[in-house]
Amino acid sequence: MASRRRSRASVVGVDLGATSAKLALVDGRGRVRDRRALSTQRYRGPRALIAVLVAELRRLIGGSVQGIGIGAPGLVNHARGLVHQFVNIRGWHDVPLAHLVARATGLPTVVDNDANVMALGELRYGAGRGTRNILAVTLGTGVGGAVIVGGRLYRGVSGSAGEIGHMTLHADGPACPCGNHGCLERYVGNQALEARARHLLKRRVSLEEVSRLARSGHRLACQLWREAGRHLGTALAGYVDLMNPERIIIGGGVAQAGPVLFRAIRETIDARAMRVPARAVRIVRAGLGTDAGIIGAAVLVREQLGQRQVIQ
Amino acid sequence: MASRRRSRASVVGVDLGATSAKLALVDGRGRVRDRRALSTQRYRGPRALIAVLVAELRRLIGGSVQGIGIGAPGLVNHARGLVHQFVNIRGWHDVPLAHLVARATGLPTVVDNDANVMALGELRYGAGRGTRNILAVTLGTGVGGAVIVGGRLYRGVSGSAGEIGHMTLHADGPACPCGNHGCLERYVGNQALEARARHLLKRRVSLEEVSRLARSGHRLACQLWREAGRHLGTALAGYVDLMNPERIIIGGGVAQAGPVLFRAIRETIDARAMRVPARAVRIVRAGLGTDAGIIGAAVLVREQLGQRQVIQ
Repeated sequence: MASRRRSRASVVGVDLGATSAKLALVDGRGRVRDRRALSTQRYRGPRALIAVLVAELRRLIGGSVQGIGIGAPGLVNHARGLVHQFVNIRGWHDVPLAHLVARATGLPTVVDNDANVMALGELRYGAGRGTRNILAVTLGTGVGGAVIVGGRLYRGVSGSAGEIGHMTLHADGPACPCGNHGCLERYVGNQALEARARHLLKRRVSLEEVSRLARSGHRLACQLWREAGRHLGTALAGYVDLMNPERIIIGGGVAQAGPVLFRAIRETIDARAMRVPARAVRIVRAGLGTDAGIIGAAVLVREQLGQRQVIQ
Repeated sequence: MASRRRSRASVVGVDLGATSAKLALVDGRGRVRDRRALSTQRYRGPRALIAVLVAELRRLIGGSVQGIGIGAPGLVNHARGLVHQFVNIRGWHDVPLAHLVARATGLPTVVDNDANVMALGELRYGAGRGTRNILAVTLGTGVGGAVIVGGRLYRGVSGSAGEIGHMTLHADGPACPCGNHGCLERYVGNQALEARARHLLKRRVSLEEVSRLARSGHRLACQLWREAGRHLGTALAGYVDLMNPERIIIGGGVAQAGPVLFRAIRETIDARAMRVPARAVRIVRAGLGTDAGIIGAAVLVREQLGQRQVIQ
């Protein structure tokens, strides 16, 4: 009976990424079942990709699924279900993704940006369990963030809150496409880190490899992550002073760099933030790994459906 | 009968400043009555000042007063009623101010830092009326801030949220006593502005005079406020990206500089913050002037007493 209730409460979580979309059933305890993936790069425009996505969704959902949550990288209007702009996939401008998927599947569908979705997943089932005031940071091509306040996702007045990637580190630093100068993303976005790795190691090298090298103690690889940690720590110290959070959760590929990165972040926060909030905050690695997007998307739709209390 | 009810619902608001303490009865509509002031600099330690404050409070409160709210500059633990540190008044270390005043007056007493108190006053009766997501900034010797989220003061996990004065503008900039480098306060705190004014105008000049000069179009005075506005705008752009607020309220002496300052803040936010949250935010001057502290302290104690609904 208990398991029937859980299965009835399943939702689909979709992690729509720039190279692949992952989708899976997620049960009422945040467990991922029956996962699928599809490439997102080979389609001409949003309609073609959405058609394939819907076909996969139809295969996945049985009679027991109650809703679909989608996390997408880029500028998303959660309230209206719109993807304004889809980072690194061309042709997406103001696509009513939630509406299109809901119409095709007959299921309630909710969409939000990937950082918000990741933060929800970590809050409920990952590194944020038991806490109420969190900053979640996703390190990748872009540097995203999401703010949890009082145990709830904080979206701001027009739904765009959380953009820590464009906080200023050096007001006269390099220009950023966002319009600002010296943004955090200019220093710890993947492109900046890859360029720095090439400069330090005198060869083309992937960030995965720099992480492996750092974990085995390679001096220059460690230097790169220490520098990255200092940049991150400087921006995060500002957040710590401003929002006095309980926990900062760091996810995305770069978070795999290991202790040398996290130590540098911690030391920089201790040096730059005020004593009281610096002592209060814990800096942790995301706990859900590559499933954070799927699980978070499931939490998103569940909270929207108001079933949080019902399910467990 | 209505007026008797209002008078019964009066509280005392105390704005404890570095040179003077202002106190007054504040009625249920945020109107200030029967105000008093006393110097705060001539006493040897906290006990002597508190004794004088209590004597003034006793004179002020009749049978109709229900509580006392105190705003104090510095590090305050609101939950415990402690003043950890009192900026610019020596000898205050972990003083249980709320407890001491409550014992001496027999009235419930609440204490919080001046920026939080100002934000509450502006939210209820000033430039923040009708909004729910606000950053309030106080410009003075220090640069303070307070965060309103969902219509409520956000204090963070250990009560220190809102410290925008120590956000980084230039990570390699001048050292700040807080431990960080290149903090906003290093550029727009009163001392920094006074030094800059001396440099630009080649003489000792008060910030009040620089404001007067700017309002009458003096070139170098305008330049000073434009620069200050750019520094402020850079830090505020980070906040706008992060928290997507509805309104930023700027108070304190420097806010009197007028349109040239506010125009520079606005232009910098438009240039440096992301488009969606930049468009959503209004930058306004605090509406309650020098009474913001008293009125905000009254709001503080009233909210604490849970009488907000009862009073109006």
